[in-house]
Amino acid sequence: MAAEGRAQGEAAESVAAELRELGLAVEVHPTDGAPVVFAERRVPGAPTVLFYNHYDVQPADPLEAWTADPFTLDERDGKLFGRGATDDKGQLASRVVALEWLKRRHGGELPVGVVFVVEGEEEVGSPNMAPYVTAMRDRLRADACVWEFGGVDAHDRPHLVSGLKGIATVDLSVRTADYDQHSGLGPVVQNAVWLMAAAVASLRDAEGRVLIDGFYDRVRPATEREAHYVAVAPREDDVVARQIGVERFLAGATGSEWQRRLQLEPVVNVNGLHGGYGGPGMKTVLPASATAKLDFRLVPDQDPEEVVGLLRAHLDRHGFGAVETRLAERPEHPSRVDPDHPWVRHAAAALEEAYGTPAIVTISSGGSGPLSPFVDELGVPVIMIGVGYAEGRAHAPDENVRWSDVERGTYATVRTIERWAGLTPDG
Amino acid sequence: MAAEGRAQGEAAESVAAELRELGLAVEVHPTDGAPVVFAERRVPGAPTVLFYNHYDVQPADPLEAWTADPFTLDERDGKLFGRGATDDKGQLASRVVALEWLKRRHGGELPVGVVFVVEGEEEVGSPNMAPYVTAMRDRLRADACVWEFGGVDAHDRPHLVSGLKGIATVDLSVRTADYDQHSGLGPVVQNAVWLMAAAVASLRDAEGRVLIDGFYDRVRPATEREAHYVAVAPREDDVVARQIGVERFLAGATGSEWQRRLQLEPVVNVNGLHGGYGGPGMKTVLPASATAKLDFRLVPDQDPEEVVGLLRAHLDRHGFGAVETRLAERPEHPSRVDPDHPWVRHAAAALEEAYGTPAIVTISSGGSGPLSPFVDELGVPVIMIGVGYAEGRAHAPDENVRWSDVERGTYATVRTIERWAGLTPDG
Repeated sequence: MAAEGRAQGEAAESVAAELRELGLAVEVHPTDGAPVVFAERRVPGAPTVLFYNHYDVQPADPLEAWTADPFTLDERDGKLFGRGATDDKGQLASRVVALEWLKRRHGGELPVGVVFVVEGEEEVGSPNMAPYVTAMRDRLRADACVWEFGGVDAHDRPHLVSGLKGIATVDLSVRTADYDQHSGLGPVVQNAVWLMAAAVASLRDAEGRVLIDGFYDRVRPATEREAHYVAVAPREDDVVARQIGVERFLAGATGSEWQRRLQLEPVVNVNGLHGGYGGPGMKTVLPASATAKLDFRLVPDQDPEEVVGLLRAHLDRHGFGAVETRLAERPEHPSRVDPDHPWVRHAAAALEEAYGTPAIVTISSGGSGPLSPFVDELGVPVIMIGVGYAEGRAHAPDENVRWSDVERGTYATVRTIERWAGLTPDG
Repeated sequence: MAAEGRAQGEAAESVAAELRELGLAVEVHPTDGAPVVFAERRVPGAPTVLFYNHYDVQPADPLEAWTADPFTLDERDGKLFGRGATDDKGQLASRVVALEWLKRRHGGELPVGVVFVVEGEEEVGSPNMAPYVTAMRDRLRADACVWEFGGVDAHDRPHLVSGLKGIATVDLSVRTADYDQHSGLGPVVQNAVWLMAAAVASLRDAEGRVLIDGFYDRVRPATEREAHYVAVAPREDDVVARQIGVERFLAGATGSEWQRRLQLEPVVNVNGLHGGYGGPGMKTVLPASATAKLDFRLVPDQDPEEVVGLLRAHLDRHGFGAVETRLAERPEHPSRVDPDHPWVRHAAAALEEAYGTPAIVTISSGGSGPLSPFVDELGVPVIMIGVGYAEGRAHAPDENVRWSDVERGTYATVRTIERWAGLTPDG
């Protein structure tokens, strides 16, 4: 997994072998971090489809919360369980199967040009992807791009996502004394855990509104078309609430307001906070240090580096000057594709055909990724479709994918590519 | 250690053997928790001194912060290092040596009656001590009591402590979803770590003032004599600041205001807060649960149970109803002995003799213990003297005691007992 930098070489080699099997010319490119698996097969006269995926996964902890070993694929109840089942090994496997399927449907040869970029640092913010795309600009030429994730919503309706939030991840740390003290000193010695808790608490209110001065200044208002797609997005909150065990969402959001928040609202998350004693029983200690991890999910035209600067100013202004901030990884800029782009519409039509129900256009995922270099540097339209579903537990224990989604999602990818290439099935 | 319930039987047996060696009749009394070592030898016509000590220690974590193994006594630089070196194995050993010393000075026999109560749950709030004292009331009759700790301050002046704060320890926990979520859901799903951080932050301000309604209502104003002893207490903050690496104390307190806060101000401490990812790198997770541990240090006439009720009301009133509270251990009530009690004055005179400098009367330690049953139920005057010092690192890594303090502190105990018994040295 990328956070711990383990098994990167093995995972890259395994992906390279799969892509070679498909008949692509594969190169494994070193970067400053994990290697990128690059694969290519151009087809003269046909358009080229670029696939962006990643072979890294999130850490599997807490291990005890998994029903079975996270690193052994476990099939039960029509699902496949394992770390990466949906994010992103399952999606990548679906792309490979879709291309094998296309070969069978079109005389044993790929009917379109294909380029793969499979990186190994997506889960830690793709710090080397922007420079990679710049350096590889000419070899990444393509007519459309299929992004690393996608799938159906809580009502099993296919979604077509055309934007991602930006992200900035920040490590916080504070030290208030050389070593932990007896908590009897509490009336005179500052408590590092209290100070960190207060700093983190100060960043937002109870409904998720960010309280950092200037945070919302650069948020670009939604266009009329964007607002339209958000307004007509079907309700998902009710099903999600049951699936994840939440009684009330932030600000009581439901329906299209829930969609608006998820797609268009930036947010700050605390990914973890740790300090002092956490074992069994009690320990009357006054902790001298504490750490926390944050991620900011940003929307156009917020600038990640600027937001981190605003965070620093906020902490200094509110009495948290002792809390140190460190950018954890290279940030990613938010980016969106025009949801009315013709290639996006082709994909939507393919989804409707595969699923028998209209595709739902999602202006932006709540998640992030290195979309900006592809959209803003290569200028390629990017769509996000795939085999995921609402209970896929990406980043959590018992991550999984359903066989039924694998089948339909893979077929939808086949049909999307055929529509892009102007091909008819079995032709 | 008491928090983890380990090695209690062995520790009790080891203490029992030491006390038998001294010629006392030893009994190991079971309780609902760890056993109490009771030892007794009455001397007809002589006063009886009661010793209260404990054989349990704090957990040793973080282990990596220790210079050497915490459970192997390590002697270096004129100090003895190890978990319990000062709290409380070193103090207990000093009491035993003082009694051996008294025997040598008085014809091979103990010149006073002696009773020991050595418990095994002091570090988890002595949940079984109050009922034990009640049940053993008749057998614990004594004229004065030497408490489990004491020593010199940051300027090496002997202190004589005559009061303790009360304590209530509370476990907090919160769950906001069935399992951790991808942090892209941040704009709609509450973050358990943020919620816990905000709850903990809301309990006090940046200078340690408790913000729970009604918290200070029962705080009894200091008497004129108590205020006097606090006002004349010599400055310690400057040396403590250097020793523990603190630049500024809460509210900028120095001098007698620092002493007043430490001795007379109640406080809430967060002993630890944990939730979400804390490993290497980053993990963009939205944590579904978090835990924290609190201790309240209370002064007369605050009532621990009432304070826990005020905490619950505070959380409910401020939007933290989802944060569950659980009393970790039976609370201890605050208690003080009259600093002008004749037996306290005898002890002060003995300290001055042993150290060559006047004893400093401390109205209350910042710490806690089961003092109330002894003072308020047995009605025995209790003093706190011993072999500790300001850099003893009680409850922290590299806990230690200095040989020089062991020698002088033990001698001071010998002289205190001789003065109480109206004996002259070598008589």
